[in-house]
Amino acid sequence: MQINAMNQFEIMHLVEHAKVGRLACVHEGQPYVIPMNFVCRLGYFYSFTTYGRKIEWMRVNPQVCLEFDDISGTNNWQTVIVVGEYEELTDDPEHLAARNEAHALLSKRAEWWQPAYVKTVIRDHVRSLEPVYFRILIKEMTGHKAVK
Amino acid sequence: MQINAMNQFEIMHLVEHAKVGRLACVHEGQPYVIPMNFVCRLGYFYSFTTYGRKIEWMRVNPQVCLEFDDISGTNNWQTVIVVGEYEELTDDPEHLAARNEAHALLSKRAEWWQPAYVKTVIRDHVRSLEPVYFRILIKEMTGHKAVK
Repeated sequence: MQINAMNQFEIMHLVEHAKVGRLACVHEGQPYVIPMNFVCRLGYFYSFTTYGRKIEWMRVNPQVCLEFDDISGTNNWQTVIVVGEYEELTDDPEHLAARNEAHALLSKRAEWWQPAYVKTVIRDHVRSLEPVYFRILIKEMTGHKAVK
Repeated sequence: MQINAMNQFEIMHLVEHAKVGRLACVHEGQPYVIPMNFVCRLGYFYSFTTYGRKIEWMRVNPQVCLEFDDISGTNNWQTVIVVGEYEELTDDPEHLAARNEAHALLSKRAEWWQPAYVKTVIRDHVRSLEPVYFRILIKEMTGHKAVK
């Protein structure tokens, strides 16, 4: 088996066709991983969620990692790793354009972003519905694939 | 949609049937995520890889997170998060029993663990073949699933 670097086309193809990415953030040396949906555009990954622990953590430490993969078997897999920085898209005028762009991009994948926003019940507690838009600045994005 | 906690049976079923888990580790506040294969047994996740950056990082900071999921769609997903601690299974006599157990468990999934060990070529450089066995002590393991 040979492991090759993926080119930019291959990386973007994987990222755009992956159902979910896995977002890792850190709090006091302890990492945490969550599957989420992302839309990539012009150097950023856009996403949307409800307020929770991961948002608290990324506000304190914006250093994050995204991972996308397509794994069919031992000799047939691709994986893309993104080293990035969390940027919250608040209601502030300075974020308005980016926030609108995030909304427009994510709306196209309504089937995916809605679940984070619909009223959910976790262990009999009604979950906060405070929406949080954010984007991940791509600092480094690399991909590798297995070749027989 | 409702999000419910998974019980222990559901958690173990997902973990044992997931093709891969995503392992997150941290170096100086920067997280890093890699898809890997794990076998769960008696409070630990066992795995095997070749020496590389992730091993260096986990030797310095053993705090890790594992994520397993089964995502079919918006209203049909399960995800398990493990907060854990990296333990390397060296050649030392104190690790011998655990290392042998790791080898026995992982050998049963030969199709999955072999790729980390077979001779691979990355961008024309032959990759180190130094094998590293390790396990992740489960400190906390929780699962959530979507229910329509």
